[in-house]
Amino acid sequence: MNLDKLQTWLQNNNLDVAYISDPITIAYFTGYDMEPHERIFALFAFKDAEPFVFTPALNVEEAKASDWNGDVYGYLDSEDPWMLIADRIHQRTKHTSKWAIEKANLSVAHFQNLHGQFPDADFSGDLSAFIERLRLYKTPEEIEKLKGAGAEADFAFKIGFDAIRTGVTERSIAGQIDYQLKVQKGVMHESFETIVQTGKNAANPHLGPTMNKIKPHELVLFDLGTMHEGYASDSSRTVAYGEVSDKEREIYEIDREAQQAAIEAAKPGITAAELDSVARDIITKAGYGEYFIHRLGHGIGKDVHEFPSIVQGNDLVLEEGMCFSIEPGIYIPGFAGVRIEDCGVVTKDGFETFTHTDKDLKVLPLKD
Amino acid sequence: MNLDKLQTWLQNNNLDVAYISDPITIAYFTGYDMEPHERIFALFAFKDAEPFVFTPALNVEEAKASDWNGDVYGYLDSEDPWMLIADRIHQRTKHTSKWAIEKANLSVAHFQNLHGQFPDADFSGDLSAFIERLRLYKTPEEIEKLKGAGAEADFAFKIGFDAIRTGVTERSIAGQIDYQLKVQKGVMHESFETIVQTGKNAANPHLGPTMNKIKPHELVLFDLGTMHEGYASDSSRTVAYGEVSDKEREIYEIDREAQQAAIEAAKPGITAAELDSVARDIITKAGYGEYFIHRLGHGIGKDVHEFPSIVQGNDLVLEEGMCFSIEPGIYIPGFAGVRIEDCGVVTKDGFETFTHTDKDLKVLPLKD
Repeated sequence: MNLDKLQTWLQNNNLDVAYISDPITIAYFTGYDMEPHERIFALFAFKDAEPFVFTPALNVEEAKASDWNGDVYGYLDSEDPWMLIADRIHQRTKHTSKWAIEKANLSVAHFQNLHGQFPDADFSGDLSAFIERLRLYKTPEEIEKLKGAGAEADFAFKIGFDAIRTGVTERSIAGQIDYQLKVQKGVMHESFETIVQTGKNAANPHLGPTMNKIKPHELVLFDLGTMHEGYASDSSRTVAYGEVSDKEREIYEIDREAQQAAIEAAKPGITAAELDSVARDIITKAGYGEYFIHRLGHGIGKDVHEFPSIVQGNDLVLEEGMCFSIEPGIYIPGFAGVRIEDCGVVTKDGFETFTHTDKDLKVLPLKD
Repeated sequence: MNLDKLQTWLQNNNLDVAYISDPITIAYFTGYDMEPHERIFALFAFKDAEPFVFTPALNVEEAKASDWNGDVYGYLDSEDPWMLIADRIHQRTKHTSKWAIEKANLSVAHFQNLHGQFPDADFSGDLSAFIERLRLYKTPEEIEKLKGAGAEADFAFKIGFDAIRTGVTERSIAGQIDYQLKVQKGVMHESFETIVQTGKNAANPHLGPTMNKIKPHELVLFDLGTMHEGYASDSSRTVAYGEVSDKEREIYEIDREAQQAAIEAAKPGITAAELDSVARDIITKAGYGEYFIHRLGHGIGKDVHEFPSIVQGNDLVLEEGMCFSIEPGIYIPGFAGVRIEDCGVVTKDGFETFTHTDKDLKVLPLKD
């Protein structure tokens, strides 16, 4: 159905061929997920012909066994894929002069190889904006998958909180989470490397998990997510291992308030920039604005980071069906870091989160 | 030191600026490893000025704390990174008319953004070939790291073989491997998703691990690797869970012979294509050529798949210091699959593997 929309778009824009190069976009259109490494993996769609998938020979069987019902053509490592692609396209249609490509994904080298096969074609059509727009609105089926991924993230927090004890490394806790996700929930891929950060490590977003050992009376930040039927979860919680200082409590409560205010403000009609400001203003008024060093959130779907970007300067008006994270953070170098994050969907009159792990500051008992 | 070579290359080729966009190449030159998601992460080097790293603001502290001693400039999500990049470059040098880019990595969109800042510049210089060539020859320090990664893969096989028992899923075994790597060896990243395939699943290279349960009297294929100090391992073993059929033994022994012959033939002077043929001819003569559906091997280093490609048609002459996999496979759809893979380095007069797990067919005892 999405491929029908793509074909209509080609027709409306008087374009002949669409070259989809991003594996995530290909999965979005075909239901076939694969990791091509450096080999060529592509979906070609046409104004006036049937689409086809082009893949390394060793993935042809897998592609045919997938949800994709169209043609699949393979190539051997010893063959020139660009020549084969051109042959297949010429067999399918006479119209190859106006192209749309995924400019945000396609490499200059692949573009030049393709261009070499179609030297007189016009490649100025950009698919990226059309696909972003298409992917921006999630269907009920997609939202169910995002909720499924969120439930796995909630499960992962439980495993992680239980695993905290004095002397255990961040990395061991992350490993226990990943293992239990795999064994108990059948989760094959995390949506990104599971992050566990303790003490001042949490002031570096995206650091670790390191071999740093958990110590009593520190904040511990978790940021984790899974892939569930091709859809991502992404959620953060910060907990206290034993009682923490007043200042740590203070930044936690400010971040909590900012996150809650943004969740309550998220609804159709507010812009992405305005929503970012709802959280940012609270943190700034409390005196910690300089420590909130990233945007409020990012879109989520098949990709753990997609559109819309909830960021200053983005005047996109939020609408029903858009899915994104709300994740204010306060990071004080050398001291501690807090982030609270839920992803969710804009509903008719509000915002429904995909994760439900409690957000009152959890103070875990000390364990040897 | 590698950055000095890059600067010399720029000078020799009368180029002004190099834009490194591949995170792995950036790590190769700077020692700073990071995952940028969709944000901008770049290294700029110059004919006549000091290089600098450009990164999202939230990674600046991490970059400064890394092995990289040069300048690091950040940008906020709300800023235009391309304008900031142009400003920094103009502050550094007057010479910005001739550029080299990583064509195999740089996206058309990023290229066009950069081009917009330097509309009159010539971007025809391609760094990809120079960097491939530089990375093709591993230093003794790099080889030590690759051996360290190989030792972790050997450890992982032990965990995996021990975990095989009737009724356990492929995915659970993969999860146990990853967990023990993390906890016992401090391995933070596998070099790719750990693969465990049983029975006919092994006829699909790169499938899984699925929720398929181990059954007695099947071949089980493992393909796994770790990242060790920024360098990858990648190794495959196929074992029998209980006695297997004569035909399964036959394809195992043919694959084993092909792999051993290629290891013995690998030395300075032979070409990549000739080495591929050494293994391929043995499998073809035994009647299974059509089931060996991929190249013999791929280069390995900071990336799990890099150059040289050990493939038909590649006349590259192998030389001391080149590192790659030797991994013939036989995949019979609906029946079984075998792959035996070691990575190693071309030495003065032979080939030294980084993994040492035994390759005589291991028949594991049945366990409930």
